[in-house]
Parts: sequence; C-alpha cells; structure tokens
Amino acid sequence: MAADKARLIFQPSGRRGEVEKGMTIIEASRRVGVDIEALCGEKKVCGKCKVRIEEGFYEKYGIQSSRNNVSPWMEEEEKFVNAEQRELGYRLGCCAKIEGDLLIFVPEESRAGKQVVSKAARDIPIDWNPAVKEYYVEVIEPTFEHPTGDFERLQDELNRQFALRDLNIDYWALMKMPARLRDKRRWAMTVSVWMDKEIIRVLPGKREGANYGLAVDIGTTTVAAYFCNLKTMEVIETVSMMNPQCKYGEDVMSRITYHMMNEDGLERMSNDMIEGLNTLVKQAVESTYPPKKKKKTKEGEQVIETWEEVPEEGKIYLRLEPRDIVDMTIVCNTAMHHILLKLDPEFVGLAPFPPVIHRSLDIKARDLKIKINDSAYVHVLPNEAGFVGADNVGVLIAEAPYKSDEIQLLIDIGTNGELVLGNKEKLISSSCATGPALEGAQLAYGMRAAPGAIERIKINPETHETDYKVIGRDAWLSFSKPEEMKTKGICGSGILDVLAELYTAGVIMKSGVFNKTQKSNRFRLNADTKQPEFVIAWANETSIERDVVITQKDVRQIQLAKGALYTGCKLMMRKMNIDKVDVVKIAGAFGTHVDRTKALIMGLFPDCPIEKILSVGNAAGDGARAALLNREKRVEANWVSRNVEYIELTVEKDFQVQFMESMQIPHMKDAFPHLEGIVPAEVLHQK
Amino acid sequence: MAADKARLIFQPSGRRGEVEKGMTIIEASRRVGVDIEALCGEKKVCGKCKVRIEEGFYEKYGIQSSRNNVSPWMEEEEKFVNAEQRELGYRLGCCAKIEGDLLIFVPEESRAGKQVVSKAARDIPIDWNPAVKEYYVEVIEPTFEHPTGDFERLQDELNRQFALRDLNIDYWALMKMPARLRDKRRWAMTVSVWMDKEIIRVLPGKREGANYGLAVDIGTTTVAAYFCNLKTMEVIETVSMMNPQCKYGEDVMSRITYHMMNEDGLERMSNDMIEGLNTLVKQAVESTYPPKKKKKTKEGEQVIETWEEVPEEGKIYLRLEPRDIVDMTIVCNTAMHHILLKLDPEFVGLAPFPPVIHRSLDIKARDLKIKINDSAYVHVLPNEAGFVGADNVGVLIAEAPYKSDEIQLLIDIGTNGELVLGNKEKLISSSCATGPALEGAQLAYGMRAAPGAIERIKINPETHETDYKVIGRDAWLSFSKPEEMKTKGICGSGILDVLAELYTAGVIMKSGVFNKTQKSNRFRLNADTKQPEFVIAWANETSIERDVVITQKDVRQIQLAKGALYTGCKLMMRKMNIDKVDVVKIAGAFGTHVDRTKALIMGLFPDCPIEKILSVGNAAGDGARAALLNREKRVEANWVSRNVEYIELTVEKDFQVQFMESMQIPHMKDAFPHLEGIVPAEVLHQK
Repeated sequence: MAADKARLIFQPSGRRGEVEKGMTIIEASRRVGVDIEALCGEKKVCGKCKVRIEEGFYEKYGIQSSRNNVSPWMEEEEKFVNAEQRELGYRLGCCAKIEGDLLIFVPEESRAGKQVVSKAARDIPIDWNPAVKEYYVEVIEPTFEHPTGDFERLQDELNRQFALRDLNIDYWALMKMPARLRDKRRWAMTVSVWMDKEIIRVLPGKREGANYGLAVDIGTTTVAAYFCNLKTMEVIETVSMMNPQCKYGEDVMSRITYHMMNEDGLERMSNDMIEGLNTLVKQAVESTYPPKKKKKTKEGEQVIETWEEVPEEGKIYLRLEPRDIVDMTIVCNTAMHHILLKLDPEFVGLAPFPPVIHRSLDIKARDLKIKINDSAYVHVLPNEAGFVGADNVGVLIAEAPYKSDEIQLLIDIGTNGELVLGNKEKLISSSCATGPALEGAQLAYGMRAAPGAIERIKINPETHETDYKVIGRDAWLSFSKPEEMKTKGICGSGILDVLAELYTAGVIMKSGVFNKTQKSNRFRLNADTKQPEFVIAWANETSIERDVVITQKDVRQIQLAKGALYTGCKLMMRKMNIDKVDVVKIAGAFGTHVDRTKALIMGLFPDCPIEKILSVGNAAGDGARAALLNREKRVEANWVSRNVEYIELTVEKDFQVQFMESMQIPHMKDAFPHLEGIVPAEVLHQK
Repeated sequence: MAADKARLIFQPSGRRGEVEKGMTIIEASRRVGVDIEALCGEKKVCGKCKVRIEEGFYEKYGIQSSRNNVSPWMEEEEKFVNAEQRELGYRLGCCAKIEGDLLIFVPEESRAGKQVVSKAARDIPIDWNPAVKEYYVEVIEPTFEHPTGDFERLQDELNRQFALRDLNIDYWALMKMPARLRDKRRWAMTVSVWMDKEIIRVLPGKREGANYGLAVDIGTTTVAAYFCNLKTMEVIETVSMMNPQCKYGEDVMSRITYHMMNEDGLERMSNDMIEGLNTLVKQAVESTYPPKKKKKTKEGEQVIETWEEVPEEGKIYLRLEPRDIVDMTIVCNTAMHHILLKLDPEFVGLAPFPPVIHRSLDIKARDLKIKINDSAYVHVLPNEAGFVGADNVGVLIAEAPYKSDEIQLLIDIGTNGELVLGNKEKLISSSCATGPALEGAQLAYGMRAAPGAIERIKINPETHETDYKVIGRDAWLSFSKPEEMKTKGICGSGILDVLAELYTAGVIMKSGVFNKTQKSNRFRLNADTKQPEFVIAWANETSIERDVVITQKDVRQIQLAKGALYTGCKLMMRKMNIDKVDVVKIAGAFGTHVDRTKALIMGLFPDCPIEKILSVGNAAGDGARAALLNREKRVEANWVSRNVEYIELTVEKDFQVQFMESMQIPHMKDAFPHLEGIVPAEVLHQK
C-alpha cells in the first residue's frame, strides 16, 4: 500500500476501503459508501456527524487502529463532544482528518439512513403538447433529376405532410443525419422537432415514443427529477438526490456569500450542480435496466467477481441512454438559477435584489455540459423576482390561480417561504424568511424525514402523556413495546404536529411559553442548559439512548418561522384589500405531510374552512413536468412571471408589529371561526 | 524497389517520386517537380532551401520517414538552421543527401518565390446592413419600486429606443452581462445584436465601431479572408494561407477519398481547417499591432533576447483581439463545406452528388471551435449543388446576375471550373473538370504566380522569336540583358498568353498540333521524351539553367481544360436556347491576371465583344464580404442557391462530340466575329 494511503473500516456496517491520507472522515465515508449525517454541510456547526475512533489491533482486517491516526482535536468539536465522550474516542467526522489506519464506529444517531423521498409525481391534468415531438417520414431518394440535398428533401417532406415550415436543424443532428438517412431502413426515419422550429434528432426507421424528457426541481436542499416519456406522458421514474451545493452552505445566502468570498466559487458550485444533474440523468436511465447482482465464479484458484443482470420475469426493460433524453425543464429559486447558470448571484442577495434575468431560457444542453442528447435544449423556467424564482412559477403553472375565480393563497414552504395570493383578476407574491425550522432543522432533535423520525403525535390534554408514530413503523407507541419504536428525533412534518398538540393540550400557552401547570413529569428544566423542555419520547423508546425532547428554544424557532409566514399572508391580504381567502394550497414536501387542521391550529395562515386547505405536493416539480409535456405552460410561465406583482414585505408599514403579533399561536387578534370546537375554547380564547 | 533508390514525398504539394540515393534534396526536388528556393545555386551560402524532415510511418504512401535517412549534419548548415529548428528536423536542401525514404515538408518561405496573393478585396458596392449591429443604451438602475431583472431593463430600453422586440441573449453574453452593466461606466453600455434577434455582446460604456467581422473564402488550395470593420465596412487587412488540407490530397476527390479510407479522416481534415481558420483569425488581429523586432540586451555575461514593438510614427494601432470578431461568413465549394463542418462528404462525390444540405447555416463559433467572440455565429453560405458550392453562390451575390437584364456568363476558374449563365429571368449553373492546367500546374514548366514566372509573352509571327515579361521585373526581355530575367517557368496567367500567341503566330495549329513550318530554331523534339516542344526562354535567361519550354503534352492539357470550359458554356447556352451572351465575367485569381483578348482567342468561351469581357477578381470572397456587411445578401444567397438550376453536363446529349470539337483553338464550327482583325484571317479560318 502506498505511504499516502490509509485503510478504513466503518462499523457497524463493516464497509471498508483505502483512501488518501488527509481527507476528513466524512469525505472518506462518502467514498466508501457509508452515510453519516451532516446537516450543516461540513461547516462544523451541527454536531450531527459524531463518530467513535476505536483503539486496537483488528486481526480480521489486519489493521492497527489508533486515535493517534487522526488529526488533533479542534476547538469546534468542544461544543458537541463532551469530556466523557471525548474520553471514549468520539470525534466530529467533519473535523477529524485521517492520518493512518482506522476502525470507525458510527453511532445510530449519526447514521443518515436513506431519506424518504416525498417528491413523487402527483396526478395533475396536463394537456399533451410537448416542446419536442416526433414525426415519421419517408423521403425520396436523390436522383440526377432531383439531386437535392438530404436536408432539403427531409424538410420538404416534413412541410408537405406536417406543415412544418422553415425548419432548422441543430448542427450536431445535421452531422449525424447523412448516415442515418442511409441506414438499412433506407430513407425512412423518425425526426424529433423542437418547438416546430428545429430538428434535434434523426433516427432511422419508424420509432414511436423514443423520446424522453426530464423535469427537474432544484431545491436548496434536495434535487428531484421526473423522467417522462414525451409521447405517453408516463412518469418512468422519479429520481432525487441531495443538492451537492449543500457543502458550500445550507441556505441560499451562505452560497451567495461563498461565491463572493471565493474567486472560483460560482464556477465550482455550478459545476457541482451540473455534475449532480448528470448523476440524476444516469439514475434515470439506469432505472430502465434490470437490477444487477454480483456473481462469483471460480477459475482454478482465482475467484472472479462479475455483475450480472437479474431481470424480473415478464418485465420489459427499456434500456434507455442519456441521448434518449431530448428535453429538460428546470425550476429552482432565483439564487439556485443563477448559480446553476453561472450568472453572478451577488445582486440577488443585495437590495433591491434584481435578478440577472427573468425570462425563461432555452440553452443547449451541451453549452451547459449536461449530458443528455447533444442537440437537446434545456428549458429553464422564468424567475419572478430576486426571492421568488422559477420554482414558484412552477407552482403557479401547476395550480394556475390565474385561471381561477376563487381567491387562492399558495404557500410553498421550503428553506424559504414563498407566497402567492390572488385569482384571475390579480396576483401578488412575496417571500418570507421562514428558515429551516419548519423542516425540522436547527432543533435539538430535528432530523430529516428518515426512519425513526416522529411524524405524528397526540398529547392527552388530561395527562399530558404522548403517543406518536415514527417513519418506518406503522404501529403507534401505544400499540408497541417501547424498544420497538427506535425513535431518533422529529422530522419536519412531525414538528407542526408536536407544536399544535402541545398548544391544544395546554402544555404551552398561546404565547409559546410552557404552561406553569403541567400534568406530567415530562416537563423539566434541562440540567445543563437550564432551559425548559418537554420530553416527547423517553430514552427507552429510542435507538439513541437519550430522551427526545422539545425545548423552549425549539418552540421559539418554530414561532419565528410561522410568524414570518403568517405576517406575509396578512400583509398580502391587506394589499389586496381582502379579509379572507377562498382556498389555501400548501406546496412542497412540507405540504405533503402536514395535517391541515394542525397547520390551521398553529396559525400558519389566516382562517379558512378546513376542507379548503389543500396539500398540492411538490407543485414546483409538477410545474416543471407540465412545462416539459405542454409547451403552452412555458408561455403561461413567462406571462405569469411578469404579471405577478412582487411585494417586498420587510419594507411594508408596521411589518415589525405584525410580525410580533403573528408569533402567537394562533394570531392573537384575528378570528379563527374554523378552529371553534377543534381547539378547546379556553385555549383558543386565552389572552 | 532497387536498393539504391529511395522514395520521396514532398509536402504540402504531395508530389512524390523515386530517386537514386546520394543525391541532395534540392536535386531530387527538381526531378520530382517541386520548387525549392535556392538563390545561391546550391553553393550552401544563401540558406534559402530550408526543409523539414518528418519522422514517422506514412500509411497512405507506405513509407517510413526518418531523419536518419539523410546524410549527417554539415558545418555550413549551422549558420542558417538554429538549434531549435534543428531539433524540429530542419536541414538545408543543398546539404542533406538522401539515404532512404523521406517525407519532406517544404515551408512556405522555401517554396520558390513567395506566392503573390491576388485575393485583395475589390471595391464592389455593398449596402451597409450587417448581421451584427451595435446599439448604445443607458439603462435605469434597479430600485425597490422597479427591481426588474438586468436583462429585462436592457431589453426594455432597446425596445423603446430602437424597436428591437423580443430580443434573446446568447448564454455566454448573458454570463458576462451583470459585471459589464455594473462597470465604472455604470448602466451605460454598447450592445451588439445579431440579426435583430439575439444580443451577443455587451460592452460597458459607449463604444463605436468596436465590432469586426471576417469574410472567409476557403479554396481547395488557398484560404483567404477579409478582416472588416462592421461599422465602417473598411477592410482592415486581407490575410491568406495555403489550405492546410492540401496534405491530404491536392484536389477535392482525393480528400473525399482520404475520408473514405480513414476512419478519422473527416475529423482530422476538419480539425486542420478549423486550426487554419484560427491561424487566420490570429493573423488578422495581429495586423492591428505594431511590428515587433528582436532586441538583445546584455545582463552581465548573458545576452537576453526580447521582442519589442516598433510602432510606425503617427500610425494608430487598433490592438484588436479575437473576441472583437463578432461575425464570420464562409464561402467554399461543397466538398470543402462538408469537410469543414464534418458532414459526410462521401455522397457529394458519388452520383447523383446530393449535398447533405443546401441552405445556409448559422452555427455558433464555439460549436465549431473557431476562436472568435464566444457568442458569435459563423454564417456558412448555401450550396447550389454537389459540385457548385457556396463559393459560386458568393460569386452570384457579388455580381447579382439575377438583377440584370443582360445575359451574363460567369466563369469561376479555380481547381474546378464553375459556370453560371442567365439573367433576372432565369439562371442555370454547371461545373466542369478543367483541372489545374489553366493555373499552370501539371505543365512541364508550370509554376505559381511568383517572381521569375512568365506572365506576358509576345511571339513574332514572322520570326517566331519570343519576348516576355516575368513577375518581379518590369522590363521585358527585349529591354533586358538575358541574365537579368532570372526566368523560372510559366504561371497560370502566362499560360493562356503563351498558347494564344503560339496560335496567333502560327506556331501551333487550330488543332493544337505544332505547325510543320517553323520559322525559328525554338521548335524541336526533346531528346529524352521524343516529344515536340517549343522553347519560350533559353537557359541563359533563366535561374534554373535550363530552357523553359512548352511541350505538346502541355498544349494538350490546356486544350482539355479550355475544351471542358467551352463545352460547358455551349451546352448551357443550348439549354437556355440562346446563341450569344451579353457579358462574360471571369472570376478567381485566374480572372485577375488573364488578358481578355487572349482568353477569347484561346476560345475559353463563346464569342463576345472584347469590352464586355470583365475580370471580377475574387468574386467568391467578395460575396462572403457582401454577406458579412449586408445581411440582405444572405437572403439573396439562399434564394439564388435554390433558384439556379444545376445542369449535370456529362449526362447531356452529345457531350463527347461537343467536347472534342471544343478542344480546337477556337471552336472549329463556331463564329468568332470579334476575333476578326485580331487573329490573322488565315489562322482564324484554317480548317
């Protein structure tokens, strides 16, 4: 083994590998295929990536592991690793660098677990009218009487049969055309035309439904894509991944800052995103092949390992390639948009936050180095404003409030909250800094939507005892043995449930402060922090051997987030001169999981009949899909992006006062007739 | 092959042969018919005969070339070949003796006499309407009331001031825009717009005439380009070079063959051409800097060489860069077109010769890897047919016979002859295989238009004595001492003169056969070949110490060429049902030099008043320039390329008979009233 390499074993998974010395444990874990939680993107601020370095000689692997084989202790680790843990060999994976052979134990709470992706495609009605359509033609052969050019003969035929006039052809497609025309299926071909303007693909013979598209939703944290057949509109596969830019900062502003602090920051972040998109493309097409299994065969002394396809019986595999993807649509917020396209995002982060460009862009995939069909365009949807991007436009074209009589309130909660209010008469939008609290981040026991995360809870108003359900287990606690729960924390959708239950049961007051009159031993002051906290799950119900609690600080975080959102809604309603909305639509992963009653109890938005609160799922992604399959949606997108009036909330009169009042659960002065009977009167009307 | 023989290939001419080992490269080059400069007469004192010995196996020729296959380095060479060149394989042709197979590259400066480039821009009237125009705008700054995107504010202003609606922006230009908008000349900028459609450049501040273009004429042998200011239409510089594809074959068919025989042949030839274009771009912009001189300074012991600019006093240098070139137009024949664009040229060489595409193409320079402005388009003019390419379209839009009442006959003589006949009613075109004889190639003493080449001649009908003029010397032989002439051979323009004079003086007959009754001792049978020949210049008038002669075979070659041309004209006139033309226009370098009376005497084309025979110079290049500076010409080009009817001559009825008759000087059966009085009656009317 080279002197600059080290051997690693990760436990309990047993995964191992050889890596260059000098890389952090987190980096190495990725190489080896071990998932360690790293919410902060290796900024050394979340403390989630705790691992234990074991000491000793491990005969089985032939390695001598030692704590001396990692880089020295760092100040940043103090905050998360206490003296006792340090004694046991605990380190932060993002701090400790590998200097020799190691056996690393990854404790349960540090294991990332496969994320439960909630960005499945919804069944929304889309009219079929994709930007790329296919046409089958048979072309006459050249003769001395008609020695016309290949392209012109093709063009004439497309004009004659399909009235496609003045067609261009992409240079890449043109290069491939002569050979394809003269394929064994001579002079018969299937031509793919983009926007009735440009030939982007020529395939020999008759090929139906050979064109695919990818509708991509680039979120600040997650990237999801729908892999669709452009003919049948069928979603072949939904693929997703973490946004690879997370390592440059969790939120939009920290990535803009990264760009400003690093000469090649923009280049790097963009390249990582492009690489990420290429990974999604690969995932998408690979889903059309049979799964593979390792096969061992013996040749004399040697054992040879090969991968072998294991097709499911009766299943047809399409075996597609990246070049079969001939169209791509992308929605994302304005900052992600600019970073992806290497457009200076600095000014999007500076008042008055002008984007570099609003309108949609059609850029050749090859210019972006996106590895789909060489001649394909990538359609990037338009931005509304600096803080309301193409993702919100995606929501708009999916939900089309501009065609509605009812006044709709659209709420898209991601790392940022984006709001649209109005109907076919008028639409206004704004954004509010909800922060990631509603998604469970930055809370003591917040975690991603992964197995072991609490997603539903009930608190008995009489006893203040809890009952809950975790992801990955159908049975609630009351129907399980404590040790079966293997609880780890609370995910985004659970957070709102917890708060609403705490409030309804009277554990916390309308102001968010813990009630003095508690009915259980779950309420306590934390010994270390002296902060009030409420135990949701006892240590024996968890896999992390600690009580899962919600702290006063957690409650405040959520109040800030929901207050920002509520203030946004209220100020927009004032702008529109209305005092109630007809429909509330909640988009985003958050919307999929949230209990609409709980959301109303929490006062995320003004009062509305419960049955008029709708979850519209990943509407941004649906918008991308709509634009992929129906080009009219692209026209609508450009129109709506310029016709929604953007309101900058923070400069609104009495924003501060409104914000303070909105922190109440629910808003103190506003009426919530639809909560009568749901929330006990004495709780709802407390002052 | 005998052991005492070696095989040689000279590049770029491609000439080859087998010679005895032991002879010098200079000696061998004469045998093979390659002109290498040797001013000192091989005395090893002028250093002009520098050549490069290439290393490697040349599959096409089946030879293994090596520097070990020449005699050892000689002291005399030190003076002329520096260490760096020696490293690269350079030798003096008079010193290095052949000891084995060789591939020898003759650099431009060693080729006998630097070629006189005759592709200077002609003063043709062009209406100013370039595809790329510049607009100066001042854009409002973004505010909270109008936080509109940068691009939209720019677009609004361009729409308001210049009625440029629905502008797009190239992705590359978009990336650069935000910084340029916020340059110290804040929010004021000069925008370059392509075809009123797409912004391709944003420069900060007011910049007038900052955009340049390059109009390129890619000939089979030579590539020439006009470097123009797009605002003033001024030709800043004319640059030219040998077509780098010459090494793959001298004519179009051999290059098509090279593609068919080599998997990566097309790729290679295209890449060489692109590299060549990039060299022209460099040459063009470098012409805008002061010349540089080497400067030696001493630092202690060391002599340091640096290059220093030596500006001419009072001269303003533009100091342009490739990115200042924002538009490029290209004309070339169909095969060169296809090879440049990597479009399979196989079918252009196969009956019925359909091109891959006729219509003009706008391809991003970056897609072609042409290093001008990143966002610029390259406009490739349309092809008429397999053998009549965009170069002919260039001639057409420069001369615009489609706007003329008179019936014009356009003749473009390059390596191929291209003909267009007609007026605004109708136009037909064809091509004929003239071969390179009219350009002086393949004749015993044919050479390029370079110093020492005979370009004008008179033969006394009484005595058959000659008087002539060579390029590089103003005085005719009759006013010079014989040794002052330093004659080397006959160039293209001289060839026609020679033949016409030989014919008019009665040295050769109408049939092309030498007359039996000769009046001088210049007519003789060659001792070696037993071929009749006529001495144009005696050895003592030459720098090659041999008589310069014209042989019977030479006369036949020219007759074949002129016969092909004349047949083309005649068959086209028959198609048009006309028996005379109003104007004859001769394009190409050939046209620039040719004496129109002599051309008529030779019977290159049917009878026409002498004053109606016009030389139109490099009309193809002029067409490229017209398309660069006037976008209407691009529309005309596409229209005319589809509305000129192409006639395949070789399939015409009685082509063979016509061809045989057309070999006569001039055509036997046709009347040439305009030659009466110019050619003696007994010569003109001989049977």
